[in-house]
Amino acid sequence: MSDFERVEVALGNRTYDIVVGSGLIAEAGVHIGPLLRQQRIVVVTDENVAPLYLPTLERALASNEIQVESIILPAGESTKDFTHLIRLIEDLETRGVERSTTLVALGGGVIGDIAGFAAAIHLRGINYMQIPTTMLALVDSSVGGKTAINTKFGKNLVGAFHQPQLVIADTDVVATLPRREMLAGYAEIVKYGLINDSNFFTWLEGHGASVCDGSADAQRKAIVSSCTAKAAIVAEDEHESGQRALLNLGHTFAHALEIETGFSDALLHGETVAIGTVMAFDLSVAMGLCPAEDAARVRRHLAAVGLPTSLRPMQGIVWNPTRLIDHMSSDKKVKDGRNTFVLVRGIGEAFLSTEVMQDDLFTVIEGAITL
Amino acid sequence: MSDFERVEVALGNRTYDIVVGSGLIAEAGVHIGPLLRQQRIVVVTDENVAPLYLPTLERALASNEIQVESIILPAGESTKDFTHLIRLIEDLETRGVERSTTLVALGGGVIGDIAGFAAAIHLRGINYMQIPTTMLALVDSSVGGKTAINTKFGKNLVGAFHQPQLVIADTDVVATLPRREMLAGYAEIVKYGLINDSNFFTWLEGHGASVCDGSADAQRKAIVSSCTAKAAIVAEDEHESGQRALLNLGHTFAHALEIETGFSDALLHGETVAIGTVMAFDLSVAMGLCPAEDAARVRRHLAAVGLPTSLRPMQGIVWNPTRLIDHMSSDKKVKDGRNTFVLVRGIGEAFLSTEVMQDDLFTVIEGAITL
Repeated sequence: MSDFERVEVALGNRTYDIVVGSGLIAEAGVHIGPLLRQQRIVVVTDENVAPLYLPTLERALASNEIQVESIILPAGESTKDFTHLIRLIEDLETRGVERSTTLVALGGGVIGDIAGFAAAIHLRGINYMQIPTTMLALVDSSVGGKTAINTKFGKNLVGAFHQPQLVIADTDVVATLPRREMLAGYAEIVKYGLINDSNFFTWLEGHGASVCDGSADAQRKAIVSSCTAKAAIVAEDEHESGQRALLNLGHTFAHALEIETGFSDALLHGETVAIGTVMAFDLSVAMGLCPAEDAARVRRHLAAVGLPTSLRPMQGIVWNPTRLIDHMSSDKKVKDGRNTFVLVRGIGEAFLSTEVMQDDLFTVIEGAITL
Repeated sequence: MSDFERVEVALGNRTYDIVVGSGLIAEAGVHIGPLLRQQRIVVVTDENVAPLYLPTLERALASNEIQVESIILPAGESTKDFTHLIRLIEDLETRGVERSTTLVALGGGVIGDIAGFAAAIHLRGINYMQIPTTMLALVDSSVGGKTAINTKFGKNLVGAFHQPQLVIADTDVVATLPRREMLAGYAEIVKYGLINDSNFFTWLEGHGASVCDGSADAQRKAIVSSCTAKAAIVAEDEHESGQRALLNLGHTFAHALEIETGFSDALLHGETVAIGTVMAFDLSVAMGLCPAEDAARVRRHLAAVGLPTSLRPMQGIVWNPTRLIDHMSSDKKVKDGRNTFVLVRGIGEAFLSTEVMQDDLFTVIEGAITL
């Protein structure tokens, strides 16, 4: 067996491992086998991922005497809707997927979210596992049990907390990623340093380029650190009644940007998170909470690896602070009409606040728009 | 305040009460108010129930300074599908229902199931409460957190375990029920005696007629006993990994009958449960597990109150044992292609078995068909 590391997500009788290492998809049966209630797996993946990893995964399962079937969905965010969910559920029903059958989500955030949600509601919940194939999924979306689909009112508005039984983080998948997608995932890695681990951020300042340029060692350390950070927060607050919301650093802004760009490729989710993170630091500076130098360090580091840090002009989009502020009000975290923001007192010192003034918000967004 | 009883469903930090008594809808605000995270409630009900209880409930909430809105769905089982679920979710989104808003399901099993499921998945879960208005919902479906919708493959195949924060069991609603619906609910009451409480069954043999004929005292005792029995089982096994499945006594048969009758009014759910319960006893007798006299007592009691206990000829339906056995295989409880049956060693001694032979099943179904 390959050399791998184990990160535990401690959730009582729903505790599970994230196994991180090279070559893990090819030996998936060894990790998955002991956890099955029935020697049967249905893999859910998409058209882009299937040719890359599905044959390897199917062989790995079959060689451990696990019966395996596959469902291949269209790639892309538009798959994460009720129409595709219903089709997926009916496919599971047609195949006679039982309560003790296990679903495996092989793919990025979209596949993890829709397959996880289908697993959450088919027969009121069946087991599922995640095999992330994007940087974003490796370090963020595959861990923690958030599953969801989008509605016409917004992203992830319908879903469930449903923890996987296992996450197989095969670090080799990173090698096949386009640079832009890699960077989008990197924005979420940086987030963990900024929330509560300034040492990790300092390490990233030194090694971020290696992570993004393909050093396997640096990537593995970044992935293990990110999963460990996320696991600790999820273990404390599984259903986001408190501290888990810190993981949304930059995301309230990111959410508004994604609505404005229609969730198109104009800005990837991770790119909006990079811009949103800078805005969250700028807002904290504007509110007198955070030293300006910390915001500058964050902006500098994200820009250095090649991530966007401001709202550049884009075809068909006129950035408008008032519109963006409006979009923020459709956020899931809104309570009594007020948004909860993740603010910072500095790098590694994030906290939640409902005390953001519209004026400060307006000024910060206006400042982020480069003409 | 009216005199009422409290039955606790003990589920750790999700523990909640069932309050049982007369006149409780008119004072719902007093019970609901202290549990709200936000002084806002959205009531989900149906066209039949709304004229009967909605004005009273709205007044009761408004007089406790709770903001209340209502969503009225079409009545009937056909409302429990993806189409109506999506419409309901979009309605919640249009109204800007937040994570801290509370949903109240005012109605029978259909409303409880679809509203509960919408509450389970809207924003990954919001609080909800149940105000049952049928006998079946009072004694069974409103307690225990099972929520679901139907798909074209079967009943309750998509759903979630999502516990309510409160169940208000206003015993006055029973007075407005048609006798046939009352009896259908009574079949589930009898179930609790048969599972593990032969004293309760003996009490029902003496007082079942009073319960069905409208004695408020007898009804209240039957409702409190049923809720207490269900609460105890749910507290032991919330997600039906074991003993909770005993609550499905008679239901594997009932399920097959409902498929055969297309979930029409030809047989109400409770009526299929009555027939299915008799079949479960007959099967246990056929397998040499249960004294024939116990099966005879059950058949006698159900028939005495006016419930069906056999498969009578019906327009458009040719009862066929092989077809019914086929229908059973789409049950959620099937594992590795085998059904789990609830069998009995006698009245009050139910247990789970996967050892039922097709021959016995065939014989029992054939015996239930009256020509």
